[in-house]
Amino acid sequence: MVMRMAELSRESGVPVATIKYYIREGLVRPGQRTSRNQALYDEGHVRRLKLIRVLLDVGGLSISNVHAVLAAIDEQISTHRVLGIAQHGLPRPQVGMDEPTREWASALARKVIEERGWQFRPGHPVVETLVGTLSAFAELKRPELTDHLGEYAALAEQIAELDLATLDGLPDIESTVEGAVVATALGDVLLATLRRLAQQVASERRFGNGDNDGHAADPPLPPPPARR
Amino acid sequence: MVMRMAELSRESGVPVATIKYYIREGLVRPGQRTSRNQALYDEGHVRRLKLIRVLLDVGGLSISNVHAVLAAIDEQISTHRVLGIAQHGLPRPQVGMDEPTREWASALARKVIEERGWQFRPGHPVVETLVGTLSAFAELKRPELTDHLGEYAALAEQIAELDLATLDGLPDIESTVEGAVVATALGDVLLATLRRLAQQVASERRFGNGDNDGHAADPPLPPPPARR
Repeated sequence: MVMRMAELSRESGVPVATIKYYIREGLVRPGQRTSRNQALYDEGHVRRLKLIRVLLDVGGLSISNVHAVLAAIDEQISTHRVLGIAQHGLPRPQVGMDEPTREWASALARKVIEERGWQFRPGHPVVETLVGTLSAFAELKRPELTDHLGEYAALAEQIAELDLATLDGLPDIESTVEGAVVATALGDVLLATLRRLAQQVASERRFGNGDNDGHAADPPLPPPPARR
Repeated sequence: MVMRMAELSRESGVPVATIKYYIREGLVRPGQRTSRNQALYDEGHVRRLKLIRVLLDVGGLSISNVHAVLAAIDEQISTHRVLGIAQHGLPRPQVGMDEPTREWASALARKVIEERGWQFRPGHPVVETLVGTLSAFAELKRPELTDHLGEYAALAEQIAELDLATLDGLPDIESTVEGAVVATALGDVLLATLRRLAQQVASERRFGNGDNDGHAADPPLPPPPARR
């Protein structure tokens, strides 16, 4: 299907001015020029525009990280590397870093990574985030809350297997990368939400004393905050 | 141990002006007055101040939600209910809500909740968040990415069991609530981080073609973004 700019905008849901900006930035290749003011676009443009929107809006990647992901796709390097680059661009949670507890947190991170047989070079950005997060437990004087770290890591491994299974059968590298970013970014929200529901059920079983009306975890106050 | 305001501030790490604000707001009970300008405080004040800081800074609760949690503790209602109120106050992820896909998402949420044997009243705020998150997958035209929802829920149940096990053995309701908020809020970050590490390992196994240097998931570009 060949189309003009107006149709490309309609098909992709991206405004014309934004498409022109992406073309100027080199994120989207220009259309096939048919006259001074006309160019034709195809399905490849639509797919590329949708991927860019997901990377920016859902994944929260910067324009320069989007560039890197698209370049990796175009260079046809391995899916694993493209996924790595996309994940690399995902914003990492902000965590405090306090030097005195860093040693403790680094040792703990090394231990869990070794236990699972994972291999990461020293200073890997996601490992650094792990060290920072573990430090935060220590800074709050609650290091014992990391006692089950190894078990959380084992569950994370099962989650990652599901994540990868979710990507199986996607037809091409662009939809795989798009799917990976959606599954990771929205998946964090999904997991956090399911975890909260499951916590309420588990808390009812462990701490509940039958003082509710048969609906697990139905606290009487305060009223639900307005949806943001 | 009995102390004056200056020591209370040092012990708790909370500035004097902030402590006075909490006392005016009714979050912390006043000290035992010994003269017109002097009052004495005890370990209970220190513990309460630390709990308030965690609820506000780590949990991101509003002052009025902190009020509700502290009131629930003081009324000595069940641990389950106090945890429910604390969790209730945790900010929920922002998710889009598109009416046309809501029906589909609601049915999916009901299905997974029933499958796991969970019981939640209709309109429960966390269930609403789940519906919103599922809607977002549909809005991005990737409903198939929720195919493994039931398996994610089963893993969330195991995570929640670990979360509750983490709270075992904490000495009193205040440290249990404080621990629950820390474990949930920091735990989201921890899980998201472990998941990313595990994803890279799983992706290397599934998609890797041996084109790296033996370190799983070590993408060559772009350079790590500066730590925020």
